[in-house]
Amino acid sequence: MKLNTLAVIGAGNLAASVVPALKKSGVKITGIYSRTYEHAVSLAERVDAPAVHSIPELETADFYLLSVTDNCIKETASLLGKITGRDSIVVHTSGSTDINVLEPYCQNYGALYPFQTFSAAKPITDFSSVPVFIEASSEPVLMKLRELSEKISGKVSELDSGKRMGLHIAGAFSCNFVNSLLSCAFDICTEFGIDPCNLKPLVEKTVEKAFDSGNPVEVQTGPAVRKDMVTVEKHLKFLQANPGLQKVYVTMSEYIINTIK
Amino acid sequence: MKLNTLAVIGAGNLAASVVPALKKSGVKITGIYSRTYEHAVSLAERVDAPAVHSIPELETADFYLLSVTDNCIKETASLLGKITGRDSIVVHTSGSTDINVLEPYCQNYGALYPFQTFSAAKPITDFSSVPVFIEASSEPVLMKLRELSEKISGKVSELDSGKRMGLHIAGAFSCNFVNSLLSCAFDICTEFGIDPCNLKPLVEKTVEKAFDSGNPVEVQTGPAVRKDMVTVEKHLKFLQANPGLQKVYVTMSEYIINTIK
Repeated sequence: MKLNTLAVIGAGNLAASVVPALKKSGVKITGIYSRTYEHAVSLAERVDAPAVHSIPELETADFYLLSVTDNCIKETASLLGKITGRDSIVVHTSGSTDINVLEPYCQNYGALYPFQTFSAAKPITDFSSVPVFIEASSEPVLMKLRELSEKISGKVSELDSGKRMGLHIAGAFSCNFVNSLLSCAFDICTEFGIDPCNLKPLVEKTVEKAFDSGNPVEVQTGPAVRKDMVTVEKHLKFLQANPGLQKVYVTMSEYIINTIK
Repeated sequence: MKLNTLAVIGAGNLAASVVPALKKSGVKITGIYSRTYEHAVSLAERVDAPAVHSIPELETADFYLLSVTDNCIKETASLLGKITGRDSIVVHTSGSTDINVLEPYCQNYGALYPFQTFSAAKPITDFSSVPVFIEASSEPVLMKLRELSEKISGKVSELDSGKRMGLHIAGAFSCNFVNSLLSCAFDICTEFGIDPCNLKPLVEKTVEKAFDSGNPVEVQTGPAVRKDMVTVEKHLKFLQANPGLQKVYVTMSEYIINTIK
């Protein structure tokens, strides 16, 4: 079986997990470019590849992984278009960018979207249970991209750009916003001298129940869903010194009350 | 060692977990009253105790567990006051009710607040890691309440009524509101034909990172914290058919942007 080669543009949180996982699965990393050269060096060292100072220095590869911020994708693709080989496949990793932004610059293109939260400081080493969503400019490209993705994940699915944006938004709710609610809860605990670790069994059980239920609205608890407005008002009064928390409390309670079946 | 006795008023979600756990730890349940007699019967059967039709029918006990909705606590306590023994201790289980509401009716009183989300359908059987917060009208009562609580939980702490309300609010953010965000995410997935199970590795990792960080604001990810307003605007446009979700998205994003250090 032919050894796949991969050139990498961008060395951020996502690349720091995905690229080593691909390398471990047998993909040869031909080079890494990042706007911040030190980031390229740091990732390159982990995958036995050269860090380069500019995109044209990247060696030709089967795949180009474009893992840059959304507003740099077009510009980077235009530079890449000049160096990629005839059969090379350029894929971005963005949840909310249509693959057609790559069309003017690349013959073969697509998206490889691992649905997980990444941090460079703590890379994810086991990708097997991370869902990866792929999309491609043609059926042959899709097949190659699937083959690449299945090297690291046991859960690879095709998803078009529109649905991928929906999934990205679902991710904002269930990851970014959940984390922000946890930060609210931590802040309240800290204010009252309560160790935020006390929240952990509650949060873990909440997540467990939501997924076990198949439909979290059916296991909703708390004053809002009971329409216990006396308690809701008590809480809002309690939070009056913190309008930011109060606003989150009001919006979430209204959402819960309005979605009661 | 003396066998503790406990009479129970209320047979809801919390009682359905706490009462069997106390029974299992060696507490004798003298009787169970609920506004809905069938609920009393159902719980009574699980703990080998009589279900009663009215509060005065409850046998005298060392402890009275008042696990009713917040707006019924005063009224129920006034009925209980007429039947409790001189040394009996009446405790409510409410996060947001001051123990002093019991003072006009009871000699010895307090609160026993297990910090967890409960559902009658799936009672929690292992309380050992559930934090239990207690408060009492006097030091001797506190000692007895601690002894009772430590029969079921390895994490018993004293917490006054004001701080308990703070903790209850932290619970609203980290349990009730988190569940509601998950229901938003499930709805979006379902709308696009994506299995919501794909959210699970993301949500579990989000919770893990938040607690590992010690301060979730430091591990905040997503378009809002990056001030990537192009993506935020794309998402809001995408959600325009659903003003409820849009409002939650705006409020949470604003909160994240405003709390960036």
